[in-house]
Amino acid sequence: MATDTTGMTRINHEKLIRFVTRSFEKLGVPTSDAEIAANVLVASDLRGVDTHGVIRFNPNAWYVKWLRDGVMTAKPNIRVITETASTALLDADNGMGFVAGHRAMELAVKKAKQTGVGIVTVRNSRHYGMSAYYSMLALPHDMIGIAMTNASRQVVPTFGREARFGTNPISFAIPAKDEQPFVLDMATTTAAAGKLELAIRLGKPVPTGWALNEKAEATTDPKIAQSARRLLPLGGTRESGSHKGYGLGILVEILCGVLTGTVTALNANQEPRGHLFGAIDPAAFRPVAEFKADMDRLIRELKSTPPIAGESRVYVAGEIEFETAEERSERGIPLHSSVLKGLRDVGTELGVPYDLE
Amino acid sequence: MATDTTGMTRINHEKLIRFVTRSFEKLGVPTSDAEIAANVLVASDLRGVDTHGVIRFNPNAWYVKWLRDGVMTAKPNIRVITETASTALLDADNGMGFVAGHRAMELAVKKAKQTGVGIVTVRNSRHYGMSAYYSMLALPHDMIGIAMTNASRQVVPTFGREARFGTNPISFAIPAKDEQPFVLDMATTTAAAGKLELAIRLGKPVPTGWALNEKAEATTDPKIAQSARRLLPLGGTRESGSHKGYGLGILVEILCGVLTGTVTALNANQEPRGHLFGAIDPAAFRPVAEFKADMDRLIRELKSTPPIAGESRVYVAGEIEFETAEERSERGIPLHSSVLKGLRDVGTELGVPYDLE
Repeated sequence: MATDTTGMTRINHEKLIRFVTRSFEKLGVPTSDAEIAANVLVASDLRGVDTHGVIRFNPNAWYVKWLRDGVMTAKPNIRVITETASTALLDADNGMGFVAGHRAMELAVKKAKQTGVGIVTVRNSRHYGMSAYYSMLALPHDMIGIAMTNASRQVVPTFGREARFGTNPISFAIPAKDEQPFVLDMATTTAAAGKLELAIRLGKPVPTGWALNEKAEATTDPKIAQSARRLLPLGGTRESGSHKGYGLGILVEILCGVLTGTVTALNANQEPRGHLFGAIDPAAFRPVAEFKADMDRLIRELKSTPPIAGESRVYVAGEIEFETAEERSERGIPLHSSVLKGLRDVGTELGVPYDLE
Repeated sequence: MATDTTGMTRINHEKLIRFVTRSFEKLGVPTSDAEIAANVLVASDLRGVDTHGVIRFNPNAWYVKWLRDGVMTAKPNIRVITETASTALLDADNGMGFVAGHRAMELAVKKAKQTGVGIVTVRNSRHYGMSAYYSMLALPHDMIGIAMTNASRQVVPTFGREARFGTNPISFAIPAKDEQPFVLDMATTTAAAGKLELAIRLGKPVPTGWALNEKAEATTDPKIAQSARRLLPLGGTRESGSHKGYGLGILVEILCGVLTGTVTALNANQEPRGHLFGAIDPAAFRPVAEFKADMDRLIRELKSTPPIAGESRVYVAGEIEFETAEERSERGIPLHSSVLKGLRDVGTELGVPYDLE
């Protein structure tokens, strides 16, 4: 496929899923689990969430390294530890967060079909990638999907000098009728950690309110910010509401960490991780057709807001990602030559024929 | 009681609850409902959330005016519209949000005892005051409490010129062992609307990122901001993450409005309101003693964070409010002479003896 002037080549997403699936299989992962993992990674690239996609699939990236080194269980025994009519706690057996997350979300949907709501938490898991993948699994069931996870310690509390918790993302996916679903997927920091990497690559400063330096002073240098590992909660400063972002980040740590017994914020090793998945059935509250019609009305009202000077549109959460996914499904996912090299290297190491370009 | 130099007088909170209860009774509210309403208002004053307390109890304030004018139902027939094992939708019959909210939260806790989680939504309700009142009702049951509500249209979407939704607050209350519970209660805007009132009273500018003027340009003048009714979502600007605050605000509108059929964002009258209440039983996931011990560990870890220069402490959500409530329970609630005049006027109008000072 064609390489453009920015060093990007368009890659067919189905080919990419097959290649990543085969690679995970070579790393000892059962086929159905390998397919789930590949789908999560490539779904991120399709939606334009490049920081969580196959950029994380090279010989030195977590998922590959952990499986090769045996630090992550390739064939985990995912067990139900506790269960009620509407809840469950799963133990991921130190396996891939992708697989435990997918299974937990399916269980949450099953419970919501019976009781109106399902909440399934996961302990002893690992990095699960893009949160929206899981919340969106509820959409084909006409349900509201919820996904959140704790993450490694790199965020400072409001007024704090040192990092104490993670970027702890929250995702909600909610179906509409003719409009695209509402899909929120947000780190509870001002900016996700991957945005610093992007700024470094572009050689651009970051806004104040994103991060502090080693001395816990504001910095706009993304390299200094990245090595200091002191991101700021959403809001940035106290007067701009950082105590709210801080509160949301800790809320996620409690729901994913304290509720499961995997409190990543208190663990110097940064792994394992805990997650929470939820499903709410709108039909438990009102006819789903009415619910979806009102979703359309609300979404259209938001999209019809006149924009401020210099902007052309007002968006709804997830809208840009749906447009990106549509375009990339047709034209291929633009991957940088360095990302393609990583994939090629994985293929060489594992003996998977590289057939992407 | 003593009046200090700032025009504040300390008022005993039990006397205040009795006075407000009697006044609500005179407005036609049944005794048990009047007690709930008075408790919600005074709980706000006790916790230092003065914008939601008895400052809203004078002859011209919503609650009094609506009851006097018959716009709000004094003796509502609160009905269960739909119900499953873990969910319910109540119709508040256009009565006080306080009463419907209290009852909905009790039902959510009851359901959580049976299935691990309960979600109860309310339609056709009115302004319910401070969200934390409801979420905290779960705490004596060792449960996680959730409360949220939609609100009147005064927030602009990211990139938008006009307001499309409300300050839509979110509250979570989570029990600990020896530490105070974690209690988050946040508007999904940079600053709650009441903070503009406060700045006007103090004659101080507000930070950029709080609000826009009539032309949808940034303003630091709280009077201009108040009349323009164009608050900014948490994050303030796009580069500082306002799309996240915007997403959270719409999430609340969907859960409280679309799920119930009371979409306040689409209603020019700004009332009625919809709410969502939830309870999650930690015991459904792991032994509650372990849960609470880990809550303590996490809270202590956060509180032990060394502060940045110029700050003395790192707080946990709700900590300041617990300290304030303790101090005000002992020494009385400091109320401004204008607030006391409002209470006196209500007493005169309704024939309730004014015995507060």
